[in-house]
Amino acid sequence: MTRATVEVRTGYPYEVHIGSDLLPEAAARIAKRTHVVLTDAHVAPLWAKAFGAAPRIVVAPGEASKSLRVLESVLDELVASRMKRDGLVVCLGGGVVGDLGGLAASLYMRGIDFVQCPTTLLAQVDSSVGGKTAINLAGGKNLAGTFHQPIAVYADVATLATLADEEFTSGLGEVVKSALVGDPSLLDELTENAGAIRARRVEALIPVVERCVRVKAAVVAADEREAGTRKTLNLGHTFAHAIEHAAGYGTVPHGLAVSVGLSLAVRASARLGLLSDPELPERLARVQTRLGLPSELEHLPALTPAALHAGLTHDKKGQDAGRPRLVLPRAAGDLVLDIPADDALLAELLG
Amino acid sequence: MTRATVEVRTGYPYEVHIGSDLLPEAAARIAKRTHVVLTDAHVAPLWAKAFGAAPRIVVAPGEASKSLRVLESVLDELVASRMKRDGLVVCLGGGVVGDLGGLAASLYMRGIDFVQCPTTLLAQVDSSVGGKTAINLAGGKNLAGTFHQPIAVYADVATLATLADEEFTSGLGEVVKSALVGDPSLLDELTENAGAIRARRVEALIPVVERCVRVKAAVVAADEREAGTRKTLNLGHTFAHAIEHAAGYGTVPHGLAVSVGLSLAVRASARLGLLSDPELPERLARVQTRLGLPSELEHLPALTPAALHAGLTHDKKGQDAGRPRLVLPRAAGDLVLDIPADDALLAELLG
Repeated sequence: MTRATVEVRTGYPYEVHIGSDLLPEAAARIAKRTHVVLTDAHVAPLWAKAFGAAPRIVVAPGEASKSLRVLESVLDELVASRMKRDGLVVCLGGGVVGDLGGLAASLYMRGIDFVQCPTTLLAQVDSSVGGKTAINLAGGKNLAGTFHQPIAVYADVATLATLADEEFTSGLGEVVKSALVGDPSLLDELTENAGAIRARRVEALIPVVERCVRVKAAVVAADEREAGTRKTLNLGHTFAHAIEHAAGYGTVPHGLAVSVGLSLAVRASARLGLLSDPELPERLARVQTRLGLPSELEHLPALTPAALHAGLTHDKKGQDAGRPRLVLPRAAGDLVLDIPADDALLAELLG
Repeated sequence: MTRATVEVRTGYPYEVHIGSDLLPEAAARIAKRTHVVLTDAHVAPLWAKAFGAAPRIVVAPGEASKSLRVLESVLDELVASRMKRDGLVVCLGGGVVGDLGGLAASLYMRGIDFVQCPTTLLAQVDSSVGGKTAINLAGGKNLAGTFHQPIAVYADVATLATLADEEFTSGLGEVVKSALVGDPSLLDELTENAGAIRARRVEALIPVVERCVRVKAAVVAADEREAGTRKTLNLGHTFAHAIEHAAGYGTVPHGLAVSVGLSLAVRASARLGLLSDPELPERLARVQTRLGLPSELEHLPALTPAALHAGLTHDKKGQDAGRPRLVLPRAAGDLVLDIPADDALLAELLG
């Protein structure tokens, strides 16, 4: 069976394993260490059996579990399981479980090891790699967290078979972002192989996940704590967060908001005269159509311009006295950071 | 006026400034940065005015503020103050404020800068230096936290004038520990200068705080994340935590429990034939007497042997299948780690 391994060269380097039926391998690798499996009530019955009789901490599925209240219950369960400093947390699930469990591992006894076993496409290509952990505060998403790298990531693409269509498609939004950030030829290959990818064929998915992970690993290794370059990974995200905030978090799946955000970023780049690849808008629209991704605000539930503008100032990553600063593409693989957005531009893009 | 500066050579090095009337200097140094002062309701009216009109977050005094609930309120207030990634938290207070504020700073937007302005002797000689942050969980003290170094520490010994006698004396327990860990001649100088120290004369306190900080800085620089050597700083603490747990946290001030813990550690060392300085028990008893510190369990509120034994297994630092591992002194400045304590020894020490 095809499989791939990508090394992430952070302060403590680690490997991301991508393949099919990897969970038993992950379980075997950690069997000798005291470990606890953190998962959610949706994923537990589907995939937790690979970890046998290991103690489980099961949280409710969904964004609401990224709270200090749930974090405290996870930490209390780690105490109850008598986990010590040499213990290990396995995060089995999507981005919520990975963000929450990574934070719990980074705090418990001031930091214990954890392993990521992402079971959504979004988590496999993006959130499980790079060590960002987080919970949400009343004032916004991901406002409290740490940088704490996992000791290994096992991305088992077989787990993607059980995702709802919308959740799988949402992950494809981050796949397209990864291609735009650092793998231009992936953009066209996604267009060509869209059928096999949407059919979730394992042999089509493994190289896609691998290439996205390579993009992320390279960026994270260059800038582990997001002092500069790592901001390129936020391509499309200032607009995406505005969309999610305007719609109410959880209404529009993150990757679909990102997909529309990518279109808006390309449009902003063209409008500001930054675009060096005049075909980029067309290439992006083509891959979005083939993958079933939205490219226009009109493809999403109706959002008022006022709500979108208000949402823009809620993005912690782009805020500067209320004026967002954008990551924009000159071409696929060639991004510019910190471009200020003026009111006329935003009015044109958001209505 | 005498003053001293000690450099702490951690991953991000920083300076500890020790002197009198340093708070205005601290305020001037950070004036150009957006900052918030975290303090408690006892310290705020005494010392916060040095920071002028800077926004304040005021928590209740005492250990109960080291909770996830209070942490969340602090984080929410940082959001409300519109603090960004380049903002700074000033921790003005004792160990509770420093531990809580350091943790809030390490989590807010995945880590912002903070400055420690310790106002208790215990915080000045120990907890404000070295980057350990923490809150308590239901299952035990300091079970959740991070390693996050401050960008500077300002230890203003003038603030010690307003401490209650018991709290000042408690801090002297950690001073004696510091001398035993890494500054043998300090042990005898404390005995000689006990009068001036207990009178809290600024010129007597500055060199004492400076030398304790030098001990801590050397240990922390050698082992920032407590993989080994840093455990020497836990001298006396396995017994101290057992005492505090048995008495109910907050009943026996930490440094007084540490003082008795030091006596027990020296006794354990003698009993196991590890002592190379036969005069150490006498030297320790002398300095404890001169400084007004307890040296025997009988000097503390009555604790049953059963409660003390139960408390021992609650110390996360020394736990190994229920059998504590001790840090023991061969002589002042010469410690051994990880000495297993057998039941006979513990029965002899704790009754």
